[in-house]
Amino acid sequence: MSLDACKRLAARSAADLVEPGMIVGLGTGSTAAFMVERLGERVAEGLDIKAIPTSNAIEALARSLNIPLTDFATHPVLDMAIDGADEVERGSLHLIKGLGGALLREKIVARAAKRFVVMVDFTKPVDRLGARTPVPVEVVPFGWQCTSVVLGQLGAKLISPRRGPNGDLAVTDNGNLILDCDFGPIKDVQELATRLDGAVGVVEHGLFPCMATDVVVATDREIEQWTP
Amino acid sequence: MSLDACKRLAARSAADLVEPGMIVGLGTGSTAAFMVERLGERVAEGLDIKAIPTSNAIEALARSLNIPLTDFATHPVLDMAIDGADEVERGSLHLIKGLGGALLREKIVARAAKRFVVMVDFTKPVDRLGARTPVPVEVVPFGWQCTSVVLGQLGAKLISPRRGPNGDLAVTDNGNLILDCDFGPIKDVQELATRLDGAVGVVEHGLFPCMATDVVVATDREIEQWTP
Repeated sequence: MSLDACKRLAARSAADLVEPGMIVGLGTGSTAAFMVERLGERVAEGLDIKAIPTSNAIEALARSLNIPLTDFATHPVLDMAIDGADEVERGSLHLIKGLGGALLREKIVARAAKRFVVMVDFTKPVDRLGARTPVPVEVVPFGWQCTSVVLGQLGAKLISPRRGPNGDLAVTDNGNLILDCDFGPIKDVQELATRLDGAVGVVEHGLFPCMATDVVVATDREIEQWTP
Repeated sequence: MSLDACKRLAARSAADLVEPGMIVGLGTGSTAAFMVERLGERVAEGLDIKAIPTSNAIEALARSLNIPLTDFATHPVLDMAIDGADEVERGSLHLIKGLGGALLREKIVARAAKRFVVMVDFTKPVDRLGARTPVPVEVVPFGWQCTSVVLGQLGAKLISPRRGPNGDLAVTDNGNLILDCDFGPIKDVQELATRLDGAVGVVEHGLFPCMATDVVVATDREIEQWTP
């Protein structure tokens, strides 16, 4: 089975966990797009839900599929959020997210949800976070060079300011910058997350410790559903 | 002595701690303006420094006084930052800052400095932070209502979104919102700061625990200089 077929399988399984009446957070990325497509099918079949998207792109897709949208002013608590991930640690279900650049809104939506369902293909589970994926860190533009020094002191071996196609520093939906920080394999995810939380100038980071309540993994043969 | 005279006295004492060759962070607010005026006098007398301002207002004042400016790209580490505060806790020297709305840049500059000098008039020292001043919390606009719920769970009794003169939500220099959170007297400042740091959607907050290296206090009779 192709990687795309795996993503699609995981996404459809995750979308089928949604129940009538739910307020649902919609993640961002290629797997999330498959999930939203499946939700669109279910809405066309009569499923009654309302959704909060995490990016302009996924909002446009949801609108095109007639999925009713809502906002945090009306619904500060969501029943479920569904999103992809860049790495999932086996056992703990800690995540790295944000290579797509939408980590801040994704984390806000995930935190607001009673249940946070993560869907991934078989290439995403790892034994230890960070071995192959940098941790994206969203930082305030003011003083980002000095925030970068602090991230180095916290153990980042290589820090790459993310750049756009024209070579300029990439700016997030929230007007911030992303520093991709290579920490190598991370021994204590919760501790590093706490240190990053406390770093002045850091708006948010791509470590999602103890947030996933369900992980749907598609291999080339089957669907597995993991819980912490 | 009037309150303004006290502020001016504290500000001039703090400015006189600056030594030739230093890179200096300039805080924001009425006391900081007195400090910058004094630095301008010293620069006119030949003091050789470079400064990084924390707001457009203080930058304009510094320029008008011919204080040379620099930036974090050139100087990621500062020798000294000088700023006011809304409350200073006696003994610990923990601070509440940010009623003026510039807490994020002020904290970034303070953290980047080897020495962080705080100057206040006699109305600012308190036995326990939070009894009379809310903690300003800078939050991402996306999902601020749900961030507000989380702040309530962390113990904020009253949460007031800060508004501008026209009644709309006030937007900071960094494009965020401020929620003024009344926690009452705060027993464990460091613990609350850590919890606020970890709250998704919080960009920064006005608790500055263990950051001041010097506090210059002007009473109506004398100048005191406190260290932790």
